[in-house]
Amino acid sequence: MNDADESALIDRFEPGEAGLVEARDFVSAEPFVFESGQTLPGFTLRYETYGRLNAARDNVVLVCHALSGDHHCAGIHSLTDRKPGWWNNLIGPGKAVDTNRFFVICSNCLGGCQGSTGPSSSNPATGRAFGITFPFVTVRDMVRAQKRLVDSLGIASLHTVIGGSMGGMQVLQWGIEYPSFVRRLLPMATTARESAQGIGFNEVGRQAIMQDPEWHHGDYPVHGGPRVGLAIARMMAHITYVSDASMDRKFGRRRTGTAASSGAAGHAYTFDVQFEVESYLRYQGEAFINRFDANTYLYITRAIDHFDLAAASGSLEQAFSKVEADTLVVGFTSDWLFPPEQNRAITLALLRAGKRASYAELKTDLGHDSFLLESEELYGLVRSFLS
Amino acid sequence: MNDADESALIDRFEPGEAGLVEARDFVSAEPFVFESGQTLPGFTLRYETYGRLNAARDNVVLVCHALSGDHHCAGIHSLTDRKPGWWNNLIGPGKAVDTNRFFVICSNCLGGCQGSTGPSSSNPATGRAFGITFPFVTVRDMVRAQKRLVDSLGIASLHTVIGGSMGGMQVLQWGIEYPSFVRRLLPMATTARESAQGIGFNEVGRQAIMQDPEWHHGDYPVHGGPRVGLAIARMMAHITYVSDASMDRKFGRRRTGTAASSGAAGHAYTFDVQFEVESYLRYQGEAFINRFDANTYLYITRAIDHFDLAAASGSLEQAFSKVEADTLVVGFTSDWLFPPEQNRAITLALLRAGKRASYAELKTDLGHDSFLLESEELYGLVRSFLS
Repeated sequence: MNDADESALIDRFEPGEAGLVEARDFVSAEPFVFESGQTLPGFTLRYETYGRLNAARDNVVLVCHALSGDHHCAGIHSLTDRKPGWWNNLIGPGKAVDTNRFFVICSNCLGGCQGSTGPSSSNPATGRAFGITFPFVTVRDMVRAQKRLVDSLGIASLHTVIGGSMGGMQVLQWGIEYPSFVRRLLPMATTARESAQGIGFNEVGRQAIMQDPEWHHGDYPVHGGPRVGLAIARMMAHITYVSDASMDRKFGRRRTGTAASSGAAGHAYTFDVQFEVESYLRYQGEAFINRFDANTYLYITRAIDHFDLAAASGSLEQAFSKVEADTLVVGFTSDWLFPPEQNRAITLALLRAGKRASYAELKTDLGHDSFLLESEELYGLVRSFLS
Repeated sequence: MNDADESALIDRFEPGEAGLVEARDFVSAEPFVFESGQTLPGFTLRYETYGRLNAARDNVVLVCHALSGDHHCAGIHSLTDRKPGWWNNLIGPGKAVDTNRFFVICSNCLGGCQGSTGPSSSNPATGRAFGITFPFVTVRDMVRAQKRLVDSLGIASLHTVIGGSMGGMQVLQWGIEYPSFVRRLLPMATTARESAQGIGFNEVGRQAIMQDPEWHHGDYPVHGGPRVGLAIARMMAHITYVSDASMDRKFGRRRTGTAASSGAAGHAYTFDVQFEVESYLRYQGEAFINRFDANTYLYITRAIDHFDLAAASGSLEQAFSKVEADTLVVGFTSDWLFPPEQNRAITLALLRAGKRASYAELKTDLGHDSFLLESEELYGLVRSFLS
């Protein structure tokens, strides 16, 4: 890819926006050996780019997405597209990740269901979706696959790798796996080892999916499958992404229109939706089943469960011993899924390993999803770390 | 009931234990009008007592249970009974709630499924379980039903009403509903209004049950029903009863026996149980479906959703204006389901209403269930408040 290609691609939509963007597919025809020992003859990663690669090819920011995220992190796909990419507030011309300066890459992870090869992809051997015959994926597998994409673009080093939640896990893995390739790491709202609580929530979600009679051991039709189980998994997970305080501010105990006007003593006595928070969570569940694959949910949550940087090396400090990049870890006070102490632990281990690392803790009451939300303080941190 | 009855009943098992206890049924043959306006011609409450009612009939401690609790809070039912009542560590001869001194009553709440009239009870009109034709129950209904039981025992006042979680809600409701009847209130790990987050978790549990194809709109056979959905609801809820720290201490990332010995790089790549925390949660789910009714879970969680003491009176301070009892509120630092601030808010509102109230916050890392756990500090607080 050269500047002319990029110029054709990035037809700036309006000032301050990444503009009209187009997803592309990177196809690796080389065999890929997963950490599990299983193999695929090759794979596809769907990705997007924003901004232009400079002549020195040293202005690349790689964005890693979270569990249910994808490659579309900024801009819009068409003029009628009402929803920009998931990190559009952070990434764009003049924004904290300034696409006037940086060439930004984001890819759907290996094992994902938004265009990259994963459980919902067709298995050439059978003509049906892989389902649970797909190889088990780890965060390290995601990073190793992503490296092939980056290499294919003729990039010799990454200025920064940035991401929150599972994206932050990939950021840390990049620093360990390819130490000399990465100059800056910016993990947010993440952990170096998935906690028992985190595994527990993931397991409840998986059980909701796998115990749904429509799951059929992972062999379900494209538009069918365990939609009920996946919706329940998502409803629960959504609660873990926000906070008590933010839910109270957003919904409190407000009733829905119907419920507010019926029932004695202001109660609507029913198991149907009564409270706005119920309506909202049901909507979150419904919306999710239309864009996400249930088997993929099993795989990605399992990848998160397996994430434990210290396990392979004996200690986190030892795991970080190879890191060459500068690291800024960002934690959020109200994040109870990957709480501040887990983010501080990353920073401390880097410092003990003699690395350049700093930690910023932002006071928010928005919970885990704080890394996605509009915050001038966060933008300022990102901007200055990238300078 | 007189002392001789009690003496026959309480055959002391061993020093310091409430001993062999027997559950009894209180049958109210008077019609009961629920807050919803629905009625029942009468109801049964199953209950237990420990210790002896004194001549003045003024040594009564009433214990209120939480969502999945019951009337069996101390002692054992037979010499082969391996598990004592759920608050046996707190209640017994010489214990914090000293049954040598107090006559302790605990009843399964109205709407419950452990012997009291509820959705799993047989509807005399049909000969089948009420299911979701049972009237909607509120915390206030539970308290009003319990009052009939207490009256039937010839008791003129309560020395103390004590309980945690939904039990704490009942404690507060007792103080408001029957102000001159109650001398001391001891609510723990509770709230004066269920939060949006709490309603959200309850709703996810209800959806898991109601979307289970075996639910059949609540009309399922006694040993059948939405067992999968109920188990999933319980697995999720269990996580909310403990804490990140306690789960990490108890399970960490330890693998189960099978998983620890298989798979590359120490991973067992499977969606079956790999981690001890998964095994534990599945066990919690399985154990629950054998002792709890799914429709009852819907009703009791809905009662919790509806709990909002301020709603009826305009403000919490106003709601507490009638209270005559002394109140000690106990919160636990690691309780994120009914966090310390919600317990402090109760105390502050009582104080603003000019009542005698104090607040104790215990530093634990055991989460919401801290009120059930062995803690000399908690015992000391309870003991001195009851003196």
